[in-house]
Amino acid sequence: MCRWFESNCRYTCHKVISWFIKQGMNNSSFASFRLNEPIILPKALEGFSFGTAPARSVSVSEEIASIFPHLESQYVQSILRKGGERFPPLKIGVVLSGGQAPGGHNVLAGIWDAIKQSGGALFGFKGGFKGILTDSFRVLEDAEINSVRNTGGFDLLGSGRTKIDSDEEIKRAVATLQKHELDGLVVVGGDDSNTNAAYLAESLQGRGPVIIGVPKTIDGDLRSCEIPISFGFDTACKVYSEIIGNIAKDVISSKKYYHFIRLMGRKASHITLECALQTHPNLALISEEIAANNSTLQDVVKEMADFVEERYSQNLRHGVILVPEGVIDHMSDMRKLIAELNELFAPNHPLASFIQEKTLPSERLDLVLANISKDARGCLALFPRPLAETLVYERDPYGNPPLSRIETERVFAHFIDKELRARAMKSGKTVPFAFQTTFLGYEGRSAYPSYFDAHYCYALGKLSVIMVVKKLTGYMAAIPNVYEPVDQWRPVAVPLVSMLSMERRLGKNKAVIAKQPVDLFGPLFAQFAEQRDRWRLDDHYQHPGPIQYWGPKPLVESPCISISK
Amino acid sequence: MCRWFESNCRYTCHKVISWFIKQGMNNSSFASFRLNEPIILPKALEGFSFGTAPARSVSVSEEIASIFPHLESQYVQSILRKGGERFPPLKIGVVLSGGQAPGGHNVLAGIWDAIKQSGGALFGFKGGFKGILTDSFRVLEDAEINSVRNTGGFDLLGSGRTKIDSDEEIKRAVATLQKHELDGLVVVGGDDSNTNAAYLAESLQGRGPVIIGVPKTIDGDLRSCEIPISFGFDTACKVYSEIIGNIAKDVISSKKYYHFIRLMGRKASHITLECALQTHPNLALISEEIAANNSTLQDVVKEMADFVEERYSQNLRHGVILVPEGVIDHMSDMRKLIAELNELFAPNHPLASFIQEKTLPSERLDLVLANISKDARGCLALFPRPLAETLVYERDPYGNPPLSRIETERVFAHFIDKELRARAMKSGKTVPFAFQTTFLGYEGRSAYPSYFDAHYCYALGKLSVIMVVKKLTGYMAAIPNVYEPVDQWRPVAVPLVSMLSMERRLGKNKAVIAKQPVDLFGPLFAQFAEQRDRWRLDDHYQHPGPIQYWGPKPLVESPCISISK
Repeated sequence: MCRWFESNCRYTCHKVISWFIKQGMNNSSFASFRLNEPIILPKALEGFSFGTAPARSVSVSEEIASIFPHLESQYVQSILRKGGERFPPLKIGVVLSGGQAPGGHNVLAGIWDAIKQSGGALFGFKGGFKGILTDSFRVLEDAEINSVRNTGGFDLLGSGRTKIDSDEEIKRAVATLQKHELDGLVVVGGDDSNTNAAYLAESLQGRGPVIIGVPKTIDGDLRSCEIPISFGFDTACKVYSEIIGNIAKDVISSKKYYHFIRLMGRKASHITLECALQTHPNLALISEEIAANNSTLQDVVKEMADFVEERYSQNLRHGVILVPEGVIDHMSDMRKLIAELNELFAPNHPLASFIQEKTLPSERLDLVLANISKDARGCLALFPRPLAETLVYERDPYGNPPLSRIETERVFAHFIDKELRARAMKSGKTVPFAFQTTFLGYEGRSAYPSYFDAHYCYALGKLSVIMVVKKLTGYMAAIPNVYEPVDQWRPVAVPLVSMLSMERRLGKNKAVIAKQPVDLFGPLFAQFAEQRDRWRLDDHYQHPGPIQYWGPKPLVESPCISISK
Repeated sequence: MCRWFESNCRYTCHKVISWFIKQGMNNSSFASFRLNEPIILPKALEGFSFGTAPARSVSVSEEIASIFPHLESQYVQSILRKGGERFPPLKIGVVLSGGQAPGGHNVLAGIWDAIKQSGGALFGFKGGFKGILTDSFRVLEDAEINSVRNTGGFDLLGSGRTKIDSDEEIKRAVATLQKHELDGLVVVGGDDSNTNAAYLAESLQGRGPVIIGVPKTIDGDLRSCEIPISFGFDTACKVYSEIIGNIAKDVISSKKYYHFIRLMGRKASHITLECALQTHPNLALISEEIAANNSTLQDVVKEMADFVEERYSQNLRHGVILVPEGVIDHMSDMRKLIAELNELFAPNHPLASFIQEKTLPSERLDLVLANISKDARGCLALFPRPLAETLVYERDPYGNPPLSRIETERVFAHFIDKELRARAMKSGKTVPFAFQTTFLGYEGRSAYPSYFDAHYCYALGKLSVIMVVKKLTGYMAAIPNVYEPVDQWRPVAVPLVSMLSMERRLGKNKAVIAKQPVDLFGPLFAQFAEQRDRWRLDDHYQHPGPIQYWGPKPLVESPCISISK
């Protein structure tokens, strides 16, 4: 055996083997099959030379324009394929920000595969924006990228919820980017992170590294005309729907209990709507509809108790109910209660310090109950006492009652049980009501990306590189026609300023990318509204099964219902 | 168009279409693809003529033999393929009993496909044994069977936990079987249902319908020398491992919390052991080991707090911990507490009625605390007060404290948090501890059966028919070499009496099929014990991904680790 082999290949073999051992992988593990699965690029993103053409003008309010004078991006830009040269050797930084979403690693792969041939370099900042502020990064090359292709999670770089908000933070971030002479920074994040990206781009005054946003969030609430969906939503909803379908199968087999399932989505109910369309539960609450109807918690509980009674009159004691985690915050009496509590606890309220001196939660609750309106009191009194005590005793980081501590699915089951018992006391007729509860959150956000998300992310990665070359700073990478087959996708760049609007946050007006709620006048909600009456008393459960990565094309390649045209 | 077509085919078309609509299926749904996926039979089960040969003699205690004098089955019987005639026209009844397990429908398909050609009839009793007692059934033919092939759940017939226990019940059951002149009854169930099957077979004195057992339970605790696994275990563990793998990816990406995951298994920890081997968590509790070591709840909590501290000393604040739901019942101090509580509440105890008069849970708890031993008191005092009140206030259907109401994963997180705070008070050094909890149960037991379970169940169905023909009453269908490829499986019939042992239940000695615990001296536990130290501080998480039904053969066809040789 030649020396060269001994010293080089053995070392490589050793490295490869020990990497496999570290990953705990063997040749037949799921991960190893996924790692080697090729990803195709849309035809429009093949090659290395591209032009841009204005596709649509966007209007920006005067206030936004005055905050972002340097981001004069009045057009959504189409990306057009041209000749076939190479990219210049690019140095690109990338950051994964906020909660994980399936496919993040494929964004990195898309960037790396685009720049590696021309001698580019990829800096992965560690732990979200904190990595930029502290100049903590990892150079990503073949070894790193090849170990994460088509896998879920953000574990290659980690993530974080640090923001780059203040002038001081922006200065430090810019210093890091300039120190490494980066040509561009790709910010993979949700509404907050992309708001940060817009401010960062503005502060660079259109010069220096190009700042690109990539739309990420399983919640599906980062959208615009050209961005039908953020990445991760497809996979997460498919994982949740798999589980909901299994639970529905259990419910229809045993027929003896109601299963309440809480889904993610504090502000918007996109996940619940998608999962409802995939699985056909008997009931699915949509926060936006409840807010639009000005429904109170008591209204909704009564309606749900009616629903249980109605099913029981048809001899049905079982059901599947989907509840978005944020639904309670959208009820008019809860909003009133929260507003009154916030007022009562505001530093300038005469009772505030007196109430806050009460160190026993029960004392504090009694005092609060005595000092709020009748409506608010009625609402607070609905909750089991320990939970009501928590609501008036603790504050979340934004100074609000800790609503995220409410396990919505359990609380609803409890409310309905209480309501049915109260009705039985009056009428003498008992309606049996047994229930189970499940919360689906962590199961979906770090799954292996679906065919759709794997390809979508890879394409967004390559697109980001093209946008760096074209110096489209302050733009978001986007593919408006994702409902078509991958090879026909047509990429565009969307000005971040076109997505900004003014919002009051912590007492100040701020330009932010607003979370997009479910459109109650859109075709998706219409599809749901048209079908749900049929699902209410008759069981039409669907069982979508686990995500398939091989096998029948429609199973593998079809995106979720929200994305289909 | 001819008249015949108009009257016949149109009707058929209409039936097919309305069936699809009722199922909510379209041509590209997951269910429709699974329905049409062919299942192969082991070579040894092909054809229609079979012989038997004694394979192993079994010893049965005198006591068991005296209870079952008519089940003289002193041999495990090998099933041997012979010529190629048809089966006689058989009338077979089938019942799905107890909790759902993936694959139940394929047992029905296996039976039906075997008997339909010779003009047989299949009676599916509805809602478990209740269907036999009330003579409620559904005749199963192509239409019914073809609508459930390869699907999860027991929804075609429903299930139930009714037992056939008393002489009166046995008489009623026999009357139903004889009324329909059934040649055989196939009991698809776990330990309890198969115990019932043994009593039923005995009461028929070896005459009349042949009673066959089929081993079903996701818990994996129905085993014997020839029964390496019950059906459903493979699928359920794969679904749980998919989710655990996703959660582990989330944990390693965010690195900021411990995730406690409770798995099914009140008496035995097979699911936890299998899932641990599939996913490599940092810690997995095995109830059987805790019982064998005589560990107390306080010991285990201390060890777990040590583990969190040890990881923190290496700057790790995250982890994945698996907990079997029944672990608390296996701790020596909890067993002592339960025994003392049961004694205190026994009708002949001097304080019993006095304690039970206390209608306030808190009063009752105080009174109980004052009247139990110091050890038991220390143990009860560990629990949050509302939970302790529940434990002394309520009774489960077996007259025990309602341990199933303890959400083990939450309680452990709470205990560890409390222990770490207490240590911080003493040492002044705070160890940060954030956690999340998940319970995995319903997600797995009604999933689409894996390749393994789909084939295993179909083979068990066909095997049951052969056993009816061979009049092997009081036997269980079994395939000892399931770790080999499907076509090489060699079926046997195992005498149910060989699985029975005497147990004290509700104050009486009764012959029952005992749940098999994890074998602490077996190769599977050894494999776990050998690896777990490596997983403790270093993260070696595995992410098995969702069950694949198409694609790379090893991913699709490999059974879970417990089944592999």
